Amino acid sequence: MHDYLEQSFSVKFEYRVHFTSGLFDITNTLLNDFLNDRKIEGIQQKILFVLDEGVAKSHPNLVDKINAYFDHFSTVKLAENIVLVPGGEKVKNHSYYNEFIINTINDYGIDRHSYLAAIGGGSVLDTAGLSAAVAHRGVKHIRIPTTVLSQNDSGVGVKNGVNFKSKKNFMGTFAPPAAVFNDDQFLTTLTDRDWRSGMSEAIKVALIKDGDFFNWLETNATDLSARDLPTMNYLIKRCAARHLEHIRSGDPFETGSARPLDFGHWSAHKLEQLTNFEVTHGEAVAMGIALDSVYSGLKGNISEDEVRRIIDLLLRLGFAITHPLMELQDESSPLLLGLNEFREHLGGRLTITLLTAIGKGQEVNEMDWLLLKKASEKLKALDAKVA
Amino acid sequence: MHDYLEQSFSVKFEYRVHFTSGLFDITNTLLNDFLNDRKIEGIQQKILFVLDEGVAKSHPNLVDKINAYFDHFSTVKLAENIVLVPGGEKVKNHSYYNEFIINTINDYGIDRHSYLAAIGGGSVLDTAGLSAAVAHRGVKHIRIPTTVLSQNDSGVGVKNGVNFKSKKNFMGTFAPPAAVFNDDQFLTTLTDRDWRSGMSEAIKVALIKDGDFFNWLETNATDLSARDLPTMNYLIKRCAARHLEHIRSGDPFETGSARPLDFGHWSAHKLEQLTNFEVTHGEAVAMGIALDSVYSGLKGNISEDEVRRIIDLLLRLGFAITHPLMELQDESSPLLLGLNEFREHLGGRLTITLLTAIGKGQEVNEMDWLLLKKASEKLKALDAKVA
Repeated sequence: MHDYLEQSFSVKFEYRVHFTSGLFDITNTLLNDFLNDRKIEGIQQKILFVLDEGVAKSHPNLVDKINAYFDHFSTVKLAENIVLVPGGEKVKNHSYYNEFIINTINDYGIDRHSYLAAIGGGSVLDTAGLSAAVAHRGVKHIRIPTTVLSQNDSGVGVKNGVNFKSKKNFMGTFAPPAAVFNDDQFLTTLTDRDWRSGMSEAIKVALIKDGDFFNWLETNATDLSARDLPTMNYLIKRCAARHLEHIRSGDPFETGSARPLDFGHWSAHKLEQLTNFEVTHGEAVAMGIALDSVYSGLKGNISEDEVRRIIDLLLRLGFAITHPLMELQDESSPLLLGLNEFREHLGGRLTITLLTAIGKGQEVNEMDWLLLKKASEKLKALDAKVA
Repeated sequence: MHDYLEQSFSVKFEYRVHFTSGLFDITNTLLNDFLNDRKIEGIQQKILFVLDEGVAKSHPNLVDKINAYFDHFSTVKLAENIVLVPGGEKVKNHSYYNEFIINTINDYGIDRHSYLAAIGGGSVLDTAGLSAAVAHRGVKHIRIPTTVLSQNDSGVGVKNGVNFKSKKNFMGTFAPPAAVFNDDQFLTTLTDRDWRSGMSEAIKVALIKDGDFFNWLETNATDLSARDLPTMNYLIKRCAARHLEHIRSGDPFETGSARPLDFGHWSAHKLEQLTNFEVTHGEAVAMGIALDSVYSGLKGNISEDEVRRIIDLLLRLGFAITHPLMELQDESSPLLLGLNEFREHLGGRLTITLLTAIGKGQEVNEMDWLLLKKASEKLKALDAKVA
């Protein structure tokens, strides 16, 4: 009686993450070469830029440079206006901005062969990425990340998202970009705080996947703190490479429960939210790494010496390792709600990555709150010793 | 100086389109078997139903039956409420409904391992599909199409969408469902208009891909008009099979410009919009098929006899073959704007499917408006002869 038809197909996704300096210099043909390679006979392709207001402020000539670039190279038609949106969580917290970008895609006639390019930090890329993914069921999306964090991590991956009722990234899709362009000139104007903040994802990926990278971070911590650009470029490229590898070798659209790249993130997401995003994502991840590393040590999975190396590196790079909201009084401490929200976001089953060595992560399905309390107390003590 | 990392991966998508009768009868284990096969150890999966108000009216016991079904089979936990939304273009025209469904996904704690099931016509499935695709970056989506049109065409594919500023399907994604369940009991309560309306997509797919299916339609037109259910089930299954084949053998997420399945659709989309959706999609597609078939005949691509067979079949099934808005006065006739909108939706290059035989489509990149005018006049004359 019952009968069925079977559907089965695969979709291939390909894109490059480019590293350059001065993307919109007339002498730099990289972006134009990319657009030229994808020219379609008989079609006038367009490009619309969405620009992070903070980046526009730090680079007052940027809009003029973009205009001059597309005057010089007429491969694609630049939309009449460059769209400015605020950076940080503000753009993700208000559904207005996503709708505003979708509106401009409509207004400027950006179609499925045209481009929405976003220049900015992770939040602007996450928001514009969602707009691009749903308008016309997906217009081509170019990402131009401007922070350490977005150049080495969020900007090179396949996810976008905005917040919904204070739930981080509740709305989003998996939508690989057409290309990513990492331009190191954007890094030179970052505040010290943003320069530092993005390095926590590199520490994270080193801890769970790449022990040699962790050694390199220890060796180069001083140069990184001193804002040496070539050293930072190396960090970004190695971190981005690990991130891309992880996506392609695993479960790119996360149909399962595993999220090994989210080491240190369950508490980080919650801390950001509890502090109304006054603690940045990178800062929160550094504290989350500290907490779950000490926890891994208390469980006996890594040695005291390894825990010390991790905490030392975080401190040498200038990270805070704990926060008053990380002090757990009892089982109903607000931070612990983060475990439940993480469980729900993953899809019902808690999967947390802990460490079994520097360079090696391991998934577990529960956290012992008393041990977490002990870990947070230990962190507080370590922090007091430094101060 | 320039350097890059290459990303490349494939994602496999699989789902079944089931055919059944009485999906929520306690004696029918099909849905429960599906849910049971996908049970995940240690996780309480949930299911939230979104139901087309029109279907709820025609099937007053449906909500009770769903409740009884999930009382009997406790494989997954039924959300406390069944969410009702209006059917037809209304649900797609107002962004409120998409947001409302996303809200309920949040309220009932539907996570990435839980299900949003939608029961209804194509519009409800399109809207709920988008909600499911973006909440948590995609919760599992089950489609239960209730009309001929959604069971044979839109409901079995990989697209979702809502309208935006009167542009049809401007916002949407490509998101394959977890499964589709076609229940023929829903067909028994359709109005004659809806029963008929959905058959135009079957005629379309027969014309461009399956000449034998067209012969079958000619042979069975009387039974189809007389609402013979087994005959309709055959039509639906054959049409759905052709649709699924097309998706997997072509360009499932439509990265190119070709849209061969959209034969007859450029004018249909515009006609729906111009009549404020008083002409249904299926009715508009029938008229669009008539127009592009006569146009194919005038170009000499198919014979007079073939044109006559197509028009005869449409008329025998009870379709109108033209509409006052299809009368083209000059180059600025509103219907012709549909060519431009179709071009933009495809991405800059017009690609229209015409016929070279019954059962064989061919893509062209332009339409001659004077020949279109002639085609519309010929249709009007044919229509007058019938009346």
